[in-house]
Amino acid sequence: MYDIGRGKRAARAFSLDDIAIVPTRRTRGIDQVNLKWRIDAMSFEFPFVAAPMDSVMSPDTAIEFGRLGGLGVINLEGLWTRYEDPQPIFTELAEIQDAHTATKRLQQVYAAPINPELITERMRTIRDAGVPVAGSLSPQNAREFASVVLAANPDFFVIRGMAVSAEHVSNVAEPLNLKKFIYDLDVPVIVGGCASYQTALHLMRTGAAGVLVGFGGAATTTTMKVLGIQIPMATVISDAAEARRDYMDESGGRYVHVIADTAMGTSGDIAKALACGADAAMIGSPLARATEAPGRGWHWGAEAWHESVPRGERVAFDTVGTLQQILTGPSTIPDGSMNLVGALRRTLASTGYTEVKEFQRIEVVVR
Amino acid sequence: MYDIGRGKRAARAFSLDDIAIVPTRRTRGIDQVNLKWRIDAMSFEFPFVAAPMDSVMSPDTAIEFGRLGGLGVINLEGLWTRYEDPQPIFTELAEIQDAHTATKRLQQVYAAPINPELITERMRTIRDAGVPVAGSLSPQNAREFASVVLAANPDFFVIRGMAVSAEHVSNVAEPLNLKKFIYDLDVPVIVGGCASYQTALHLMRTGAAGVLVGFGGAATTTTMKVLGIQIPMATVISDAAEARRDYMDESGGRYVHVIADTAMGTSGDIAKALACGADAAMIGSPLARATEAPGRGWHWGAEAWHESVPRGERVAFDTVGTLQQILTGPSTIPDGSMNLVGALRRTLASTGYTEVKEFQRIEVVVR
Amino acid sequence: MYDIGRGKRAARAFSLDDIAIVPTRRTRGIDQVNLKWRIDAMSFEFPFVAAPMDSVMSPDTAIEFGRLGGLGVINLEGLWTRYEDPQPIFTELAEIQDAHTATKRLQQVYAAPINPELITERMRTIRDAGVPVAGSLSPQNAREFASVVLAANPDFFVIRGMAVSAEHVSNVAEPLNLKKFIYDLDVPVIVGGCASYQTALHLMRTGAAGVLVGFGGAATTTTMKVLGIQIPMATVISDAAEARRDYMDESGGRYVHVIADTAMGTSGDIAKALACGADAAMIGSPLARATEAPGRGWHWGAEAWHESVPRGERVAFDTVGTLQQILTGPSTIPDGSMNLVGALRRTLASTGYTEVKEFQRIEVVVR
Amino acid sequence: MYDIGRGKRAARAFSLDDIAIVPTRRTRGIDQVNLKWRIDAMSFEFPFVAAPMDSVMSPDTAIEFGRLGGLGVINLEGLWTRYEDPQPIFTELAEIQDAHTATKRLQQVYAAPINPELITERMRTIRDAGVPVAGSLSPQNAREFASVVLAANPDFFVIRGMAVSAEHVSNVAEPLNLKKFIYDLDVPVIVGGCASYQTALHLMRTGAAGVLVGFGGAATTTTMKVLGIQIPMATVISDAAEARRDYMDESGGRYVHVIADTAMGTSGDIAKALACGADAAMIGSPLARATEAPGRGWHWGAEAWHESVPRGERVAFDTVGTLQQILTGPSTIPDGSMNLVGALRRTLASTGYTEVKEFQRIEVVVR
Repeated sequence: MYDIGRGKRAARAFSLDDIAIVPTRRTRGIDQVNLKWRIDAMSFEFPFVAAPMDSVMSPDTAIEFGRLGGLGVINLEGLWTRYEDPQPIFTELAEIQDAHTATKRLQQVYAAPINPELITERMRTIRDAGVPVAGSLSPQNAREFASVVLAANPDFFVIRGMAVSAEHVSNVAEPLNLKKFIYDLDVPVIVGGCASYQTALHLMRTGAAGVLVGFGGAATTTTMKVLGIQIPMATVISDAAEARRDYMDESGGRYVHVIADTAMGTSGDIAKALACGADAAMIGSPLARATEAPGRGWHWGAEAWHESVPRGERVAFDTVGTLQQILTGPSTIPDGSMNLVGALRRTLASTGYTEVKEFQRIEVVVR
Repeated sequence: MYDIGRGKRAARAFSLDDIAIVPTRRTRGIDQVNLKWRIDAMSFEFPFVAAPMDSVMSPDTAIEFGRLGGLGVINLEGLWTRYEDPQPIFTELAEIQDAHTATKRLQQVYAAPINPELITERMRTIRDAGVPVAGSLSPQNAREFASVVLAANPDFFVIRGMAVSAEHVSNVAEPLNLKKFIYDLDVPVIVGGCASYQTALHLMRTGAAGVLVGFGGAATTTTMKVLGIQIPMATVISDAAEARRDYMDESGGRYVHVIADTAMGTSGDIAKALACGADAAMIGSPLARATEAPGRGWHWGAEAWHESVPRGERVAFDTVGTLQQILTGPSTIPDGSMNLVGALRRTLASTGYTEVKEFQRIEVVVR
Repeated sequence: MYDIGRGKRAARAFSLDDIAIVPTRRTRGIDQVNLKWRIDAMSFEFPFVAAPMDSVMSPDTAIEFGRLGGLGVINLEGLWTRYEDPQPIFTELAEIQDAHTATKRLQQVYAAPINPELITERMRTIRDAGVPVAGSLSPQNAREFASVVLAANPDFFVIRGMAVSAEHVSNVAEPLNLKKFIYDLDVPVIVGGCASYQTALHLMRTGAAGVLVGFGGAATTTTMKVLGIQIPMATVISDAAEARRDYMDESGGRYVHVIADTAMGTSGDIAKALACGADAAMIGSPLARATEAPGRGWHWGAEAWHESVPRGERVAFDTVGTLQQILTGPSTIPDGSMNLVGALRRTLASTGYTEVKEFQRIEVVVR
Repeated sequence: MYDIGRGKRAARAFSLDDIAIVPTRRTRGIDQVNLKWRIDAMSFEFPFVAAPMDSVMSPDTAIEFGRLGGLGVINLEGLWTRYEDPQPIFTELAEIQDAHTATKRLQQVYAAPINPELITERMRTIRDAGVPVAGSLSPQNAREFASVVLAANPDFFVIRGMAVSAEHVSNVAEPLNLKKFIYDLDVPVIVGGCASYQTALHLMRTGAAGVLVGFGGAATTTTMKVLGIQIPMATVISDAAEARRDYMDESGGRYVHVIADTAMGTSGDIAKALACGADAAMIGSPLARATEAPGRGWHWGAEAWHESVPRGERVAFDTVGTLQQILTGPSTIPDGSMNLVGALRRTLASTGYTEVKEFQRIEVVVR
């Protein structure tokens, strides 16, 4: 604890940039590493969830992500559910270079209403492709569209907002009672973002299968400048991992997955998130670099189009290869943007681990 | 405490950049947040005071700031009280690009004498518009022009200098006895800058309604380079907040407002200042980005035109929108420069608070 | 120890940039300094080993390095043992400016098989020049080519990989049993990289004459971005030096040399590595600045051409002088890139030391 | 103390950039501040000594510096004592833009021998102007030219080297016995640089009137890169100030002045050096910005022309005004480069001090 001044004390908090993984005395063959990720009744080839952001997840890329072995999540309140054919909008947005103009245009195109029929259609498209189906709503819209989503029979229901809490108080709208809401659903729920031990614990108690840790999207948010709020990810993941342990104890053995959902920009970042205790990573910006990415070189989150207090920006990313190359390689760019799976496999092998669950215990250092 | 060397120990001090607000387990509806600020007999829509700097406050912008719900303060020893019509000077200054030339020209134009009649006229203009009236003088000029100011019947009298102390000793001029001076006035006084617990406490004992914490104007001062002096704002605000508590105890309940007056560059900075214990923020550089700003894209403080030791520079700011957009939005630029009120409202909601007074207790972290 | 969060603690680790050597109360004449380095049966004029990287070590530069008094090491799985005449490849590579293209081309040219006859030939060339002969293999290739290397009768056998451990487990290949392998060899072995006290101790127990500390090549690796792993060199060298002391105790007096093999970019870095306890430094990037360097202004390590997870890049370096000028001066560029020997001599003299072994005890500070 | 690793511990050391002066509860009138500096039998208007560097001190500028009230020191082994008329060389050097070429040319022009008659002549020129006379030699040359210097009857004899110690051992040359040497001289000696409490104490015991703390010339040295050595000035000044106290005690009251001689780039740096305990500052780079500076926009120290291990570079500085403006203003550039005396006066006033001796006790913070 530090004394900020006479009237305030504060703990030190750590971002993933503040830490590094250090090798141990053991190494393992790359062949020995097993990255399979099991959550609820499902199993995935690797512990990556694609972020429900319009610039990376379309029905097509969600399907491709699923085929490659991960869990794609489609944004059910984005352009794909507001427009029958959003492609012209993506094209138009991609041609806007000026940041100010882009923000204004985003605010306009996202002002269109969500069409429930499109929710159904987008999920059916993914379902028909034979891959796991998952869609996301914000807490604000979760109740209104829940029945539509459930009717589409998804494998996972994702509730994702900037700050989701177990205690929300409002005058104008009856707040979502997450515990009751999740209990009533017949489908596993992944919910977040959470940013503290307490919130993680509360969200675990709602019956969620996984909690998202962080705000989502460090690459695109400007929340620190606009709100003064920041999620120091190494600290918050470690706090949520402790909540997972405590909740497992109090619940008599229920294991709720901790999914890191901020600052997952490179394979190195993902490795450090798991080293801090995450079970999986929700990735956005690495996928924005795919040739198939709907954003066509641009990446943005829901914060970017808030009608009165936008706190995210559209960010340009170089395209580096196909979704497959980005996920499973081979890599031809040594900056952590390609072959995320191969890189993670190698981090475990180089430090003597074969399973993510064990790797969560690896030593890290403050650098 | 650190050992700087064998002969010196030092505490760690924190700037607002060193800290971040972290979410709690609660969130609130944006509608629940109440930003109203009451000081002395007056009430404002939001806790922002406009900085008495010529580049942002003219009679017109002070009026507009007041109409929008804040407290505008006009600089009573700036160009508006030295020149009948300062507009040609603003025009000329705006056309100077070279920094060195600008400093010299500022030194020249501010060498003109203050005209007491203009003090009266400027304040009357604001009064006639039906908004709260506040004007500022430096401690050096406070006594000479006090009667003129009082005759204009202001709502607040602001005494603002780089380092205002309760104990000032001088050979050439009898120093301002702040306690007596403020006691004799019939109008609430806001006084600063102060930069320590002791000074804050002393200034509170003078009878001031509010104390300004900081030097004023991190965006434009170069005091660190010139004097080696710096105000670590997170630390100093927290110290002043503790002085407020201690003074309230010793005075039997008098509450003196702590107004952060340095480094208030973005809505995020303002949120962090309140999180450290400030009641309100005096803002300069955000207003320099208004289309109505007299500085026309340039921003400077009184330090910039000191005749022998200038320690501030004229800084260029992009214009982003009207004063109204900057204060109450909607924002179309996600960098903390627009919709300062909406952003602050959102910070409180996202962290589960409804009142600034409560929000002062929120947890922050050293990052 | 820091609390990263509730579920993770971490020690602070230090890079060489984090520390500085501080003068003592003594100084010595430059003439008094003795930099001679003795390892196994050999003696060198200065404690520098040239890194077995294709961009710096060809048979010719290994010979020149040896003639100047150091230990040159040729990479036995690089271009010189894959191609009868690699010069056209070096020429072609030097002409590629684009980083992405360079990585792909490196992956291609290193896909050619290693020719054992060329191993023999390259080592014979060096032997014929009358300088010490040393060649390096990665742990993966050590067994396959060991007999060929031994037949060439080298003075040192270097086993160098990113993370060499005493405990390696693999399904596909029987891992190299370093202890048995080194015991069976008749030639002194230098082995690494190691990155912890435990690994250093284990490698010392294999019978090695020296251990390489670090990953090799901070100038060219992007391991932090790709794998999340970083070697904080000041910490790791100091840990390995302690392992050297402990192993000397447990072995009844066997002294295993600690050779710093990462981040040796300037003469200042080398001095700080020795100050942390290293006996010698393996240097790469300073040699890439020689007019004779095979890389012709480019520098890369084995990480740069990994077929599926490259984690290094080709880096451009300005040529500053001949190998002799770089090693023994005189220097005409005051940036730590020239006269590495003279600079090290001067560091010792300026701080009152005459021998590296004593200098390892000098006080350093965290800056 | 930090554990760098298992085998090394280190203290934290602080540069002047790491700290800031914070205001106190008092302020003083600028008129009350007294900057007079008394050392040995002499008194100066302000506590500044001009650094004996060829780029700033010629006989003419030393005279001007003295007339303005400070102590100018001429370099007695620079171009002015190697060449009857060095002006063509200054002209030629000023026209060289390329750094590499400049270093080589500096090495050549400084290879010319020192002419003792020119030592005499340069000092006489200064003496004839009626200002205090001080000349500097390195420890290497001190004995050889001491008699010549003494014959010129200087007010101060400055012995200035990179690392001057009380214990120097050499084979080739009998080292300078500083204690005996200084005792034998009839003139007050200022000696340094020293970089630790121990060395400061030892140098005080030699009988010196002042000790120079630091290496001299942070603006131009690259010692960190070349030698790995760095002087954290806040720490070292504070250590030397403690040595001053301890020596005063052991000597029964002899006060040896601590003169900061590194990193004195701005008026803010100077203020912080005094705040750490220095009595005066030796300034180089601020004077390189004078219209009269012999370096004509370039600045370099003796490290820049070392024949085999140069560890300094020629640095370009913008010319900002006359020597008088730089020292006593008025300033028209708010970056700490002008009106050094006025700025220091203001720092003391703003923090409630009237004397440097008192100001040495001011509180500083680690920022």
